[in-house]
Amino acid sequence: MTDSNKVTACVLIIGNEILSGRTEDKNLMYLARILNERGVQVAECRVIPDDKTIIVNAIRETREMFDYIITTGGIGPTHDDITTECVAEAFNVETKLHPKIVEMVSRRPADAESMKARMRMAMIPEGASLVHAEGAPPGYMIENTFVLAGIPSIMQRMAASMVKMMRSGETVQSKSLDAHLTESEIAQPLEDIQNRFPNISIGSYPFMKDGIYGTSLVLRGAELTKLELAFAEVEKLVIDMNGIPKN
Amino acid sequence: MTDSNKVTACVLIIGNEILSGRTEDKNLMYLARILNERGVQVAECRVIPDDKTIIVNAIRETREMFDYIITTGGIGPTHDDITTECVAEAFNVETKLHPKIVEMVSRRPADAESMKARMRMAMIPEGASLVHAEGAPPGYMIENTFVLAGIPSIMQRMAASMVKMMRSGETVQSKSLDAHLTESEIAQPLEDIQNRFPNISIGSYPFMKDGIYGTSLVLRGAELTKLELAFAEVEKLVIDMNGIPKN
Repeated sequence: MTDSNKVTACVLIIGNEILSGRTEDKNLMYLARILNERGVQVAECRVIPDDKTIIVNAIRETREMFDYIITTGGIGPTHDDITTECVAEAFNVETKLHPKIVEMVSRRPADAESMKARMRMAMIPEGASLVHAEGAPPGYMIENTFVLAGIPSIMQRMAASMVKMMRSGETVQSKSLDAHLTESEIAQPLEDIQNRFPNISIGSYPFMKDGIYGTSLVLRGAELTKLELAFAEVEKLVIDMNGIPKN
Repeated sequence: MTDSNKVTACVLIIGNEILSGRTEDKNLMYLARILNERGVQVAECRVIPDDKTIIVNAIRETREMFDYIITTGGIGPTHDDITTECVAEAFNVETKLHPKIVEMVSRRPADAESMKARMRMAMIPEGASLVHAEGAPPGYMIENTFVLAGIPSIMQRMAASMVKMMRSGETVQSKSLDAHLTESEIAQPLEDIQNRFPNISIGSYPFMKDGIYGTSLVLRGAELTKLELAFAEVEKLVIDMNGIPKN
């Protein structure tokens, strides 16, 4: 395995409401899963406030570090929706009305003032391609950056279009089991297995279920054969230590 | 209002399991709320993988940018728990066994191998202060960085101690109402109010409840008088537009 077929993404969650604790983010987990199926690994996520300088800098910095950037939030019709102007500035382009979004947005009648506000959603950076969302104004893509809505139901529809526009990399496979052993009990022999399988990432996560302490062991890797070999060793270890599994 | 009394924090969520979508983070929202009560604003959050270079760099970069850094995750007894060695490297100090944690960890009997693994939790950076957690090994603080567990129930116990160790800043107050108006309808008059109250942050968040589209309007600010003045204007606007409230 080399890294040549590894495709990475950084998720930028834009919104004061997440940082203030008013709203719990629901988009990272969804994106991580759907991207992983496409062979794109979320390598980092940042939650940043509705602040122009911070958003512009975050895009400029991360777009050089990862294959793809995905922003969520801040593309609605109100004054606090500033993502588009920030994206345009980060890529040094102007924004302009996109005729196809103008047409979509105009279909539903509204008074002049509401329509003017709605047109904010049709102003996108020059050179951007649309990311279709069933039944809602689209998101868009500029260079390696996808700009999606913050509302989960709309974001998910955009994400379905987005993944088809992405280069797909190696898919990371995973296998896991729950051992009725504490992390301390299994730590040393587990590390020995990890050392023998450097390309498999072995994670251990303690849990408490029905009053029993246990440890979830999660193995992840791009090479299925290696993954299965490592998993067989972990499974044997757990059985030998009377930690139960063989599901 | 000046920024002199503004205290900021950056949350670093460390863990492959969050970035892979296996586990949903539950710590950011909790921390944001408890910190806000203390007058500490979460200004940014980053989710980063269990990778030494990335963790060290993230700590080094963010510790200069914010008053406090709070890490969650990666302080258990297994090989994938690397937060402590990363924190030590970021601050250029050694790790050593902390006698008080050694004593706590030794209380519960275990075989030699398990005990050795558990002692990883007693190895903390030199010069760090303990952050007590009821019924669990403690987290710690070094300079402006707090190192907490990833498991929410333990993290929360550490956070209760942490906030008492922090300098408290201005508390951001908030007031909100739900208007039965779309974002587009209210966008322009809302922006006018925002322009008149530059120190109040007015956020608008669309929702759909019982088949009715509406917009949650959230006003936040440190000056209660200004906040109430701005809120009264928003409330009047919503009533005038037949968007209901007066709760």
